Amino acid sequence: VARVTATGTGHASGLVDELVGVVGERHVLVDPDMTAGYAVDWTGRFRGSTPAVVRPGSVEEVADVVRLLARRGIPLVAQGGNTGMVGGSVPTAGEVVLSTRRLDRLEPVDALAGQVTAGAGVVLDRLHEHAEAAGFTFGVDLGARSSCTVGGMIATNAGGIHVLRYGSMRAQVVGIEAVLGDGSVVEHLAGLEKDNTGYDLAGLMCGSEGTLGIVTKARLRLRPRFDHVVTAMVPVGSMAAAMEVAATLRATVANLNAVEMVGRAALDLVADHLGVAPPVRAEVVLVVEAAAHHDPSEELAAGLEACGELAGEPAVAVDGAARRALWRFREGVTEAVNAAGIPHKLDVTLPAAALAEFADHVGDAVHRLDPSTTTYLFGHLGDGNVHVNVIGLAPGHDADDVDRAVFELVVAHHGSISAEHGIGTAKRDFLHLNRSPAELAAFAALRRAFDPAGILNPNVLVPT
Amino acid sequence: VARVTATGTGHASGLVDELVGVVGERHVLVDPDMTAGYAVDWTGRFRGSTPAVVRPGSVEEVADVVRLLARRGIPLVAQGGNTGMVGGSVPTAGEVVLSTRRLDRLEPVDALAGQVTAGAGVVLDRLHEHAEAAGFTFGVDLGARSSCTVGGMIATNAGGIHVLRYGSMRAQVVGIEAVLGDGSVVEHLAGLEKDNTGYDLAGLMCGSEGTLGIVTKARLRLRPRFDHVVTAMVPVGSMAAAMEVAATLRATVANLNAVEMVGRAALDLVADHLGVAPPVRAEVVLVVEAAAHHDPSEELAAGLEACGELAGEPAVAVDGAARRALWRFREGVTEAVNAAGIPHKLDVTLPAAALAEFADHVGDAVHRLDPSTTTYLFGHLGDGNVHVNVIGLAPGHDADDVDRAVFELVVAHHGSISAEHGIGTAKRDFLHLNRSPAELAAFAALRRAFDPAGILNPNVLVPT
Repeated sequence: VARVTATGTGHASGLVDELVGVVGERHVLVDPDMTAGYAVDWTGRFRGSTPAVVRPGSVEEVADVVRLLARRGIPLVAQGGNTGMVGGSVPTAGEVVLSTRRLDRLEPVDALAGQVTAGAGVVLDRLHEHAEAAGFTFGVDLGARSSCTVGGMIATNAGGIHVLRYGSMRAQVVGIEAVLGDGSVVEHLAGLEKDNTGYDLAGLMCGSEGTLGIVTKARLRLRPRFDHVVTAMVPVGSMAAAMEVAATLRATVANLNAVEMVGRAALDLVADHLGVAPPVRAEVVLVVEAAAHHDPSEELAAGLEACGELAGEPAVAVDGAARRALWRFREGVTEAVNAAGIPHKLDVTLPAAALAEFADHVGDAVHRLDPSTTTYLFGHLGDGNVHVNVIGLAPGHDADDVDRAVFELVVAHHGSISAEHGIGTAKRDFLHLNRSPAELAAFAALRRAFDPAGILNPNVLVPT
Repeated sequence: VARVTATGTGHASGLVDELVGVVGERHVLVDPDMTAGYAVDWTGRFRGSTPAVVRPGSVEEVADVVRLLARRGIPLVAQGGNTGMVGGSVPTAGEVVLSTRRLDRLEPVDALAGQVTAGAGVVLDRLHEHAEAAGFTFGVDLGARSSCTVGGMIATNAGGIHVLRYGSMRAQVVGIEAVLGDGSVVEHLAGLEKDNTGYDLAGLMCGSEGTLGIVTKARLRLRPRFDHVVTAMVPVGSMAAAMEVAATLRATVANLNAVEMVGRAALDLVADHLGVAPPVRAEVVLVVEAAAHHDPSEELAAGLEACGELAGEPAVAVDGAARRALWRFREGVTEAVNAAGIPHKLDVTLPAAALAEFADHVGDAVHRLDPSTTTYLFGHLGDGNVHVNVIGLAPGHDADDVDRAVFELVVAHHGSISAEHGIGTAKRDFLHLNRSPAELAAFAALRRAFDPAGILNPNVLVPT
């Protein structure tokens, strides 16, 4: 695969002409001032350069662009809202950037099916508003909602706080249209809930990080919109007890929407940051939510009752402002951590049976490495997903060592080194910790099958 | 790929010795009396022969068998309970049969995670009992429950009546262990709900019909066990109205478990067969069920109320015997159709917006082809899944013509020619109706990636 590392070479300028021939001059950006925003991620951690940002306006244009790059052996990075956490949508090795943002057509909601067809460039916020207006909701929500796109969410199999109830992005996708590495277009968008006519290409694209194909359109499941929501903040004495509480709530509260967790250190930090004392305080605090067509307060109370001594006296809220006040102690953690220093952030999943032991030891493991650190734990406990944020790494200490120490503890407990964020370029060199040589060989074979020229995001996930 | 069509040849007997070397003499069957039951499906429609049935007892033995067959280029068919509908697990071209039934280890339920690890040979009935004993249920249930195996259900992405609530088999699988076509073993069984560390091999295996790998073990999601169930039989004036009722119930009844459908002809037939008058009668009758921790009768009644004029006065049952009496009119249809003649059975899905028009015309389309036929419609309306059963095909008329007529109508309405049953050998020649050349090429590339020697069930799905 050829590398294009600078514009203005004969190679690249011929390329630009060809790209212009496909999408028109307006939609090929080459001026570094214009391409700069596409060449760096929002955190500033991942930075690259690109000979051209190409913005196709249709699946045919995407296919033509991919075909011409495949013919020339020039790699590309597909980019949606560029809100990723692992450098997966940035041209770190001088790739062409294929922006999907113009593919932003949102079709009317199909109320009979409870589905909608959305272009890859549709922003999550807009999808939510569109669904709500038709009496539905969309099952995935996350912090980057004002920028992240449907295509990027599919490519990264985005999760968020409602995975417990609705699953991750993969569980929302009923069909896709995508361009594979040879420029061929696969399309299966009828939205059939039962359809055993071959392999699940739609599911396979979810979480493939732009390496198997470029999703251009998706058929998405919508969920009923619930008008009644109850939120409770529940004090729990230990992480082991919190896991028992989560399991009991899952088993007893059918309308359970979320079981989120804030560890004691993170709770104190966010309370300081907000300047508000939390209504409950404990080793672990859970933010629990149920949503239903009727008031689910009784249902949630019964579930907490079933937890017996394990769950302390909760703070409960049903009206919007009071609920948001409780959520601030969970959702504000990221902001509080960012304000406290330059955080090093990890996002891992542990098996339910091993999570408490991991949580009880991960801070010590990091501390042993660097005694100046503080480790904050929070996350989506209902899914076993823990965010590990480390603050105060001493100068000269390598963040990679922190990664390695945490990941080794994760792997020793049979957990995943990437819960929601994916592998990207950031965790590529750690993937072997989670995946055996046989799995990595299968991944590589899959890549070759879908992208024989090796041009789709070649530096991400499993290197081609 | 070599074909082994008879036992006793030098080629085959050398093979048998090698297989015996892997699994032991007791577990290689060559006597046609012993292999006959593995060489024909339960309906008797698909029949073949095999030089050997091999019954490995561990994943290592499965891998050794696959490796030795790959080396010799001898094809195999993986077989679980052999309850498939499309000839996908029968050695129709003289393949070796690899039976997964001895891989029947069922681990203790992990109550904290709400999951269980099961061998591919575990029978569905046993899985259900095991889950119930631990306070859970398993999300997929179907008629073949006393014979079908976890491995076969994964390979065919089995559905059934609760797909509406829990999804098909793919939605239950959190992890798999499988042997690929080169004998390599991929294993990812920790049961992590959020795990974005590469491609979704587990989901890809679901519905792959034994062509990408042989599933040997799976990590499965369990669901809360509900003690309160309400069933209603609802008369509706037309299929179009039935689709509106289904959509309204999905939107308003959070604890909805099933929306099943019986057309008028099928209802009359089953009532005759049972010798019992149905409590309601209409152009379309829906069997609707909700299940919850509390009595969901009010919730279901409110949902039906929200349907307004579209839903007629329902017959409602909450106790077990009365509920079963209602279900007999839905579950008895297959038996009633079988008793009425030799049925030709099709299993299709239509988009919600097109289902009513399809249902209103499919009987006529078949009738035009053969005026002696009667067409019965029933199925899982909540998923858009219609079973089309045709009785009374005149002698000399080819069932393939019926298939073609129905499938063409399905495809004209953007539906799927196989909802639950898969493609197997039965629908292989029709797959191009549903899948474009680009999709079929992607399927073929996937097969080559996972099974370079082309030995895994080569006559099924997309021929190698």
